[in-house]
Amino acid sequence: MRDSMRFTHFNEEGQTKMVDVSEKPLTKREAMAIGSVYMRPETLKLIKNKQVSKGDVFEVARVAGIMAAKKTSEIIPMCHQLNLTHVGISLDIDEGKNKVTIKTTIKIAGQTGVEMEALVATTATALTIYDMCKAVDKEMVISDITLLEKRGGRSGEFRRD
Amino acid sequence: MRDSMRFTHFNEEGQTKMVDVSEKPLTKREAMAIGSVYMRPETLKLIKNKQVSKGDVFEVARVAGIMAAKKTSEIIPMCHQLNLTHVGISLDIDEGKNKVTIKTTIKIAGQTGVEMEALVATTATALTIYDMCKAVDKEMVISDITLLEKRGGRSGEFRRD
Amino acid sequence: MRDSMRFTHFNEEGQTKMVDVSEKPLTKREAMAIGSVYMRPETLKLIKNKQVSKGDVFEVARVAGIMAAKKTSEIIPMCHQLNLTHVGISLDIDEGKNKVTIKTTIKIAGQTGVEMEALVATTATALTIYDMCKAVDKEMVISDITLLEKRGGRSGEFRRD
Amino acid sequence: MRDSMRFTHFNEEGQTKMVDVSEKPLTKREAMAIGSVYMRPETLKLIKNKQVSKGDVFEVARVAGIMAAKKTSEIIPMCHQLNLTHVGISLDIDEGKNKVTIKTTIKIAGQTGVEMEALVATTATALTIYDMCKAVDKEMVISDITLLEKRGGRSGEFRRD
Amino acid sequence: MRDSMRFTHFNEEGQTKMVDVSEKPLTKREAMAIGSVYMRPETLKLIKNKQVSKGDVFEVARVAGIMAAKKTSEIIPMCHQLNLTHVGISLDIDEGKNKVTIKTTIKIAGQTGVEMEALVATTATALTIYDMCKAVDKEMVISDITLLEKRGGRSGEFRRD
Amino acid sequence: MRDSMRFTHFNEEGQTKMVDVSEKPLTKREAMAIGSVYMRPETLKLIKNKQVSKGDVFEVARVAGIMAAKKTSEIIPMCHQLNLTHVGISLDIDEGKNKVTIKTTIKIAGQTGVEMEALVATTATALTIYDMCKAVDKEMVISDITLLEKRGGRSGEFRRD
Repeated sequence: MRDSMRFTHFNEEGQTKMVDVSEKPLTKREAMAIGSVYMRPETLKLIKNKQVSKGDVFEVARVAGIMAAKKTSEIIPMCHQLNLTHVGISLDIDEGKNKVTIKTTIKIAGQTGVEMEALVATTATALTIYDMCKAVDKEMVISDITLLEKRGGRSGEFRRD
Repeated sequence: MRDSMRFTHFNEEGQTKMVDVSEKPLTKREAMAIGSVYMRPETLKLIKNKQVSKGDVFEVARVAGIMAAKKTSEIIPMCHQLNLTHVGISLDIDEGKNKVTIKTTIKIAGQTGVEMEALVATTATALTIYDMCKAVDKEMVISDITLLEKRGGRSGEFRRD
Repeated sequence: MRDSMRFTHFNEEGQTKMVDVSEKPLTKREAMAIGSVYMRPETLKLIKNKQVSKGDVFEVARVAGIMAAKKTSEIIPMCHQLNLTHVGISLDIDEGKNKVTIKTTIKIAGQTGVEMEALVATTATALTIYDMCKAVDKEMVISDITLLEKRGGRSGEFRRD
Repeated sequence: MRDSMRFTHFNEEGQTKMVDVSEKPLTKREAMAIGSVYMRPETLKLIKNKQVSKGDVFEVARVAGIMAAKKTSEIIPMCHQLNLTHVGISLDIDEGKNKVTIKTTIKIAGQTGVEMEALVATTATALTIYDMCKAVDKEMVISDITLLEKRGGRSGEFRRD
Repeated sequence: MRDSMRFTHFNEEGQTKMVDVSEKPLTKREAMAIGSVYMRPETLKLIKNKQVSKGDVFEVARVAGIMAAKKTSEIIPMCHQLNLTHVGISLDIDEGKNKVTIKTTIKIAGQTGVEMEALVATTATALTIYDMCKAVDKEMVISDITLLEKRGGRSGEFRRD
Repeated sequence: MRDSMRFTHFNEEGQTKMVDVSEKPLTKREAMAIGSVYMRPETLKLIKNKQVSKGDVFEVARVAGIMAAKKTSEIIPMCHQLNLTHVGISLDIDEGKNKVTIKTTIKIAGQTGVEMEALVATTATALTIYDMCKAVDKEMVISDITLLEKRGGRSGEFRRD
């Protein structure tokens, strides 16, 4: 298999294109992505306490993630426009590792997968947590953003070990 | 100092707001952020070879990052709208660590900093690399997204160790 | 029936989500919304006269409403993206009540309704009338924005009395 | 004063234009707008209970309002682009009148006022409350959207009685 | 046939509307548009040389064109939202005529055609070439933007002579 | 002067960047662009007649052009975000040459020019005329899009012969 055939967003001359999915059938597809925001224990405590009292960082971050999922084709140049049928984002505090874990699930009935939507939603959620907390902690690190699972479509199921 | 005063995007009742920067002076500001995309050696080689022949993953990713920087206030809910005066993104291949390193510099003359713009540009660049290469490698990981440096404004200089 | 099941945009933990409509069939749907802009008789007269001579406030407002309908999922956080198949906006002057009445009809073949699209188009039309006339009348009031009718989908027909 | 000079968004031939503010000085400006969402007492109770337990309608609506304020020049055709320096939205439950009251404050240092931004934020907040609650109450009415106060700029202070 | 029936974006009263395509079947459709950017021979040479050495004007322009195609319904007021299934843009240097020729192909399965998407992508590509080169040549001219071919849908095939 | 210095949107390695204008002073700037839409005499007559009776193609096109001017930095990848202080678009029918002529004037006080904004507004206006008329004439041609005049900024005045 030649290289030029493998990076599907380039044609044989190495020019970008939005891949032709016209002949692909509409199938139900789902993708899950994860990511983490590492921070100081005090920052994590502030987020946690806010949630039981006032000022819910997670709620704002979740709204940002859902809205960003819908913007994926505006942010990632070669992404197809897709009308998502479900976006769910769960956020968990892992005190042992001083981090917040983000897990996003996206569904669609379409001609192409929603991996990028899941990854975009996850990073937008992470970035919003950073923004909401940066006044108290500038050294947070966003890491481990990756695709967890993918179902539907010709390439079949993908599941990360 | 009370908690409610520290997360600046919440008022005293814990309600979100876009922070009032009306009284802050216009000053020159700059922020640098970094991030990495870890991938298989074969994927890295494909990117590298393309660059010298045809189909430049980095050029598309760089354009995506620059355009995303300008969209920051649409993606991060509490971010102020800012007219950036410079966006520069450099991409380097680190073969020893099987990763691409992204480094973004943003400048502005404004009433608030451009940390989020630098982080958004960095992640959009990383996500576009993922998108361009995902046909050959679904297990790439975006990590180590963080603020490197920040200059200008009342809070002064920040430099990560 | 428990409360947590009734606000469909929250899950059982009270966290926002974009409702999963993956299993719903594609059906033809339609929604109609109305709204009014109350103003001084002199302002209403200016609008009316302009229409027969030059400077058509209604035409600009109608274009704004149609374009805003297409932006609904960017403005309302939990709204699904929908490719509308028709947007029609009619504007009437009610001199007896010193107001302009806006009536919007939206159609689609989709998995979810277009109530929000109809309401967003109606308010954007009203706000543009306000903007076009605010130099002569700052005391206009936008009121009575509501859903008039809704057809198609599982919940069946809704018609306001 | 001739009519054609009064609707400032039209030129002498009645053609739309974005008003020329090039010669106006940069001044601090502020605008406040209000609006209401009328609903059934049961719906109001659901919102209120959610706030003390889980699923905060107001928080999502507030985020939507803040983000919509930043989109004003994309929604209202003749509005100038403005980099807002503050957006604050307060939401109050008025049980006697079965309504939620929205009050928005916007600030800027610019060449033109922020009335439209305050009105757009107010209606987007109201529309999001409608969206979050429409599964239980389709007959909500958005009303009384109006400018409350305006300060700064050549036309001076405006305060609604 | 009366005039008022022929400009399909107006109703019988001459008011704009987004045409009702609800009853049209989903069919595969394709459109091709072309356009040219005329420039000085030296500018053309700079573009050409860059391509073999460094700084690829065409790659940036192609990305801009693909992204603009997806924005068509935000730019052209009466355009329906469409989820494109393919965007391809080819760029050729015509040294004899001192111009760059742009040719765009768009595909979709939808209820309405993609002519406007092809034209928008072509002009955005042309405008980006202008932007990338304007520091060396302000007198470039964008011309000959037109629909070349159109297939699918009730109105059948169109092919420019 | 070396080539690599002349295409200002590339750095020395030929990588795209948003040019650094941080050190440039804020000055008043203005740009004018023109363009034409060539069409059949019958199409031109339809537009003309509509204007005196009902269904104003030009008004919709003008609104589209003004709104597109504000979107320039989202469409042209390397354009800086600019808050325009004036957008004016005039449309003229040239029956002798079977065309509509578009002339756009843009003003700003900023660190960089508004040529691209004037060109984007002109093409969006032309494309909207195409869209409004394409049901009766698919062979229209958009041509002669070019910069007419430019004032303000370091590079001084430019005027096309």
